[in-house]
Amino acid sequence: MTDQHARPSGATEEPLYDIEVPTPTHGERACTLLESLSTGTLCTVATEPAGFPYGSFVTYAANGGNPLFFISGLAEHTRNLKADTRASLLVAEGGGDDPLARARVTLIGQCRQIDDGERSQAVSTYLAVHPKAEYYIEFKDFSFWRLDVESLRYIGGYGRMSWVDLAEWRDATPDPIAPHAAGILAHMNEDHQKNLLDYCRAFTKATDAGAATMTSIDRYGFEMSVETGKGPRPVRLAFAQQIATPMDARRELVALAEAARGVLGG
Amino acid sequence: MTDQHARPSGATEEPLYDIEVPTPTHGERACTLLESLSTGTLCTVATEPAGFPYGSFVTYAANGGNPLFFISGLAEHTRNLKADTRASLLVAEGGGDDPLARARVTLIGQCRQIDDGERSQAVSTYLAVHPKAEYYIEFKDFSFWRLDVESLRYIGGYGRMSWVDLAEWRDATPDPIAPHAAGILAHMNEDHQKNLLDYCRAFTKATDAGAATMTSIDRYGFEMSVETGKGPRPVRLAFAQQIATPMDARRELVALAEAARGVLGG
Repeated sequence: MTDQHARPSGATEEPLYDIEVPTPTHGERACTLLESLSTGTLCTVATEPAGFPYGSFVTYAANGGNPLFFISGLAEHTRNLKADTRASLLVAEGGGDDPLARARVTLIGQCRQIDDGERSQAVSTYLAVHPKAEYYIEFKDFSFWRLDVESLRYIGGYGRMSWVDLAEWRDATPDPIAPHAAGILAHMNEDHQKNLLDYCRAFTKATDAGAATMTSIDRYGFEMSVETGKGPRPVRLAFAQQIATPMDARRELVALAEAARGVLGG
Repeated sequence: MTDQHARPSGATEEPLYDIEVPTPTHGERACTLLESLSTGTLCTVATEPAGFPYGSFVTYAANGGNPLFFISGLAEHTRNLKADTRASLLVAEGGGDDPLARARVTLIGQCRQIDDGERSQAVSTYLAVHPKAEYYIEFKDFSFWRLDVESLRYIGGYGRMSWVDLAEWRDATPDPIAPHAAGILAHMNEDHQKNLLDYCRAFTKATDAGAATMTSIDRYGFEMSVETGKGPRPVRLAFAQQIATPMDARRELVALAEAARGVLGG
């Protein structure tokens, strides 16, 4: 599942947490990423210069995993697709200090123009994500295209990458907590540093943690970057049960803080 | 140079300014965009699934117009390039309300691994843009690759797009004011609304301007979005001479404000 770069030294570090705790699959992570964004790079086979892979900026609607595009016949990518339907869509997370730590997914398949019978469904799916496209929804040169995903590669950052099993991808649903994650992280990091340290000391091997930053939260648990004597290290803890709302997250995080205090005898 | 979408109504609007004023070429705009960013989408021809165009996230150094990549042999794009050197790089501006108004450029050509004799130059060029890559610069699975650009397509937003002439591209230099543009725009829009309106009233047909926002500045001039009786409209004004520094910009903008007051008799 992971790739290992050829580091000059072969040293590896022992994980500070139970790596078997429930964790989103790469299919679920890719699905959540696709759903959370609405622009990416469409790759087509160029007609000019013929045969070259051609990348262009596009807006999309996730459309349950087979992304939908509303593109102009005047655009290069549309001309290319009319000649060769093979395509991929790269969707990449933005922000963060280290660009190579950002999550991204490449979806590969045939991208075909959808027919008139599917148009009204496509219009509503697309406008739900891109309401401003209402302005040009009747332009005669625009049409809907759908990428029917046949294979996909997910890269979640360093050492977290794989070709995703297509059945896993088809079953995946976007993480319900994702739209709320940034707010929960900000709240925990600003107001609950003591709880984060208690989690580390009670439930991980980072018992010397000097500081902890919550870096992600999902339906199954959350991750922290922990300052240890050997530098920053990642840990992950799972919730007692899956969560779906910010209220669920609050309940689980409070319960975990109480359990930690019990363990630590505080 | 421009594409015209098939609008339901054929109405076109008369420009409010002299469209012949000095303006960056598409080659210059593309060059400035490439230089201002350091991540993009590399498009290669996939080995698996064979022949599909494959988009992946990459970091790059602009390298005078033939972008340089430092990539792992474990990555799909590197495997793809070893089998087929045809490639493109899409670089796209971020931010802004309207994704389709963002500038982007697709650079197309052969992407080849550079040889040992060029390595030390590549290391310094790449690390100047990505200093954190020092950490893995000696990893054995990484190597430098260069995209030798043979053709390129620039899209600056609505109706501003073209295949760029290769000679124009090779002669283009990045706009020297680009690194300072955001600060200048913020200053002008926050503190000099009256000057912006004076520019509109004295030097454009937007004599009924109710408000004006400076939207871009470059070595040749600047652009504004002007509130008119018919909605927001773009205008562009040129400087008396090319500028290269924020001090130059200040001098030209002050001179233009004085000239506007002279015209308006204020």
